[in-house]
Amino acid sequence: MFKPARHGEVGGVSLQRSQQQKPLRSHDRFNLCAEMSHKIVNLRVRDVRFPTSLEQHGSDAMHTDPDYSAAYVVLDTDSGLKGFGLTFTLGKGTEIVLCAVKALAGLVIGKSLQEIVSNFRGFYRLLTSDGQMRWLGPEKGVIHLATAAVLNAVWDLWARAEGKPLWKLLVDMDPKQIVSCIDFRYITDVLTEEEALDILVKAQEGKKQREDQMLKEGYPAYTTSCAWLGYSDQQLKQLCSDALKSGWTRFKVKVGADLEDDIRRCRLIRKMIGPSSTLMIDANQRWDVAEAISWVSRLAEVKPLWIEEPTSPDDILGHAAISKALAPLGIGVATGEQCHNRVMFKQFLQASALQFVQIDSCRLGSVNENLAVLLMAYKFQVPVCPHAGGVGLCELVQHLILFDYICVSADLRNRMCEYVDHLHEHFTSPVVIQDAHYMPPKDPGYSCEMLEESVNRHEYPEGDIWKQEIKK
Amino acid sequence: MFKPARHGEVGGVSLQRSQQQKPLRSHDRFNLCAEMSHKIVNLRVRDVRFPTSLEQHGSDAMHTDPDYSAAYVVLDTDSGLKGFGLTFTLGKGTEIVLCAVKALAGLVIGKSLQEIVSNFRGFYRLLTSDGQMRWLGPEKGVIHLATAAVLNAVWDLWARAEGKPLWKLLVDMDPKQIVSCIDFRYITDVLTEEEALDILVKAQEGKKQREDQMLKEGYPAYTTSCAWLGYSDQQLKQLCSDALKSGWTRFKVKVGADLEDDIRRCRLIRKMIGPSSTLMIDANQRWDVAEAISWVSRLAEVKPLWIEEPTSPDDILGHAAISKALAPLGIGVATGEQCHNRVMFKQFLQASALQFVQIDSCRLGSVNENLAVLLMAYKFQVPVCPHAGGVGLCELVQHLILFDYICVSADLRNRMCEYVDHLHEHFTSPVVIQDAHYMPPKDPGYSCEMLEESVNRHEYPEGDIWKQEIKK
Repeated sequence: MFKPARHGEVGGVSLQRSQQQKPLRSHDRFNLCAEMSHKIVNLRVRDVRFPTSLEQHGSDAMHTDPDYSAAYVVLDTDSGLKGFGLTFTLGKGTEIVLCAVKALAGLVIGKSLQEIVSNFRGFYRLLTSDGQMRWLGPEKGVIHLATAAVLNAVWDLWARAEGKPLWKLLVDMDPKQIVSCIDFRYITDVLTEEEALDILVKAQEGKKQREDQMLKEGYPAYTTSCAWLGYSDQQLKQLCSDALKSGWTRFKVKVGADLEDDIRRCRLIRKMIGPSSTLMIDANQRWDVAEAISWVSRLAEVKPLWIEEPTSPDDILGHAAISKALAPLGIGVATGEQCHNRVMFKQFLQASALQFVQIDSCRLGSVNENLAVLLMAYKFQVPVCPHAGGVGLCELVQHLILFDYICVSADLRNRMCEYVDHLHEHFTSPVVIQDAHYMPPKDPGYSCEMLEESVNRHEYPEGDIWKQEIKK
Repeated sequence: MFKPARHGEVGGVSLQRSQQQKPLRSHDRFNLCAEMSHKIVNLRVRDVRFPTSLEQHGSDAMHTDPDYSAAYVVLDTDSGLKGFGLTFTLGKGTEIVLCAVKALAGLVIGKSLQEIVSNFRGFYRLLTSDGQMRWLGPEKGVIHLATAAVLNAVWDLWARAEGKPLWKLLVDMDPKQIVSCIDFRYITDVLTEEEALDILVKAQEGKKQREDQMLKEGYPAYTTSCAWLGYSDQQLKQLCSDALKSGWTRFKVKVGADLEDDIRRCRLIRKMIGPSSTLMIDANQRWDVAEAISWVSRLAEVKPLWIEEPTSPDDILGHAAISKALAPLGIGVATGEQCHNRVMFKQFLQASALQFVQIDSCRLGSVNENLAVLLMAYKFQVPVCPHAGGVGLCELVQHLILFDYICVSADLRNRMCEYVDHLHEHFTSPVVIQDAHYMPPKDPGYSCEMLEESVNRHEYPEGDIWKQEIKK
């Protein structure tokens, strides 16, 4: 069963083997795992930063100069197998997340993969409900970002141990085992374990066909790469033109700094992409509630599908008011990249405060908490359109949205996954986009292992890139 | 104007001087400040932990073994004046908050007090809206706890520079200057700057009488010291008996671990304190929504005034459902010690999700953000009953609740401030309780300077206390 991923390896063999198997039942899996327990003997975490602010990549109305970064976690096991995980950050403060990861390390080191996954809900709660550390959250901010990095590495380890890409590990899992990974605390008023199980069992029908469809066609994506706020009109035009040639039909534009400028830029892009393409706009929390409504109303002429993050990510009732006001204009509200846990998503859904759920693979508590949100979104019949971009977010979240389609929603209407086209070259198994679709990854794991050389060069502050920056 | 606080000094002189002055107008204050700008030349932060878990002080249903701790900040200025601030933590993970404080230090060092307070809203936003670091919150978790520690030290510095206890600095401030300290971003749908100003201007009437009343009678308190979850029945009885003799009439009991045990303990305490005393219960987030309602309904017989933190601190709609269900039983809902910012409090108020607002001096962004919450609570006519206890929380929050009574609410009905009677001996100006009332502090500053010897002994992990603990 032990099958470490190698860079560039296409895991066709393991995938075919998996496809021939029935979904794994609990005791099968444990028999497999019993071959080798993969005891975690060390946890390393590194501060990796890319100087993206130099070229305004990633710039928006609230984050004008991000340096896309990651707290990058490597788990070493006694078997030699490694697990790689990360959480995404914007530069400054990444060292705080590292400090938090180190504080969690004691809860991880010494445990075997088998021990963790045989009671994954318990392990999730161990990390998130420590009697002393939960005061720092609970389940929010730095400590939850650190939890995500650690758990992402555990999931990567698990998928590698099974010789499968993470999405396939999830797809092959027994519904009972899926729900056993979820902490239902604080969400049972909306979704009980029984309801979750029921949703998953019903979605078993047609699973094989949907998996085949994904392997053939991929999952639909949209691009955010054409219209960062810091780009010139000339850049916008060139990038839109290039994207159209590559088959993109869904485009997101950053707005919120200046209304007249937004109108001009959105008109320009709508003109470039034509009436049949999809346009979304993203304000990155720039406005108060009333301002959001009036500003977005002025942009209705370019027919955006959604306005993303119109106000504070904590303001459920504010988003509900904005949703209600914009519904007659045919504009939905999307949010989630800074929605910090399942309790917040629960309420956004309860309050009809969003029409598009933007899960994040590093803000929420890894796969465990994302599973809860996917299932709640299904219950409310709200489409999930994940947040991606940054560093490694595309690599990670593609696994979750594939699982969502194959095993939960069985629906592609109004669904698409964000894509941003930089920094993928630093990963050992970068995303594969074909004709504006995410093609299912085939390498074992969760796709967020970085090239050792990239990590070394970009480690802050000692890597060559930063030594050069500091010299300037 | 420069008047450093000395331990044990009773600031009677400065207080009398202040009382003779009219409320300071903006230009008056700047003239005063102009005497000396108090440029911040250094920021030090220390990890101070008290081994309270050894005796189960502070134990509750979710935090079974807290070591009350603080990230303790000292600001050094070029004038020699110092500012002391802290944020409260529960032990493990305090080092993460230290790391966050250090990340913020660069935004503080080099600025003068005058520069900060002449645009305090701008400075608040500088700390909370850094384009790279806001990703780690925004305004929540570790980064916001660190912001609170730093800003608490700035407010302490300001009060010392003016030679006044912080509450008196606030009480003497012009309403326009008060609102200039508040960041109204994301709350203008509930409270605009103009409305806030209007509330403060109207409350000028009778201010002097209320200040005199507070100086004479103090602010009503309740005690949490009698009934931590880890205490034996014998301890409960003894502590209740002692508290009654000292004049306490309001008692809070920790619940949520075991229903039958809660019934027994609450009956015991209700019997001890009699029907005319006030009893509150506190579950520290133990339940889901339905469980909270059924559990608390079983405890209705002991007539609790409120149930505190029945569920996740993030669950506004859950608290609203619980409030609605318990209203017919005459039980209110209280929450706030883990309510992480003004946007959350805004929604708790909008949704009628709480009947008692429990502000926290270290969870919210210091005085600045607490002012916003006090004013919103007034607008909704919901009483404020601050969270205290921990380390230094009583010392800090007494200033805020005095300001609330004197300058905002002008009302004591259903209002009281939490009190816990340990760890005060480590402060240079510990709280003074008389007949179960907080007596207004008189020393200049925000009352959270700790004794140097206490800090040295309890510093983690190098202090003597911890060296001994580690040896065990």
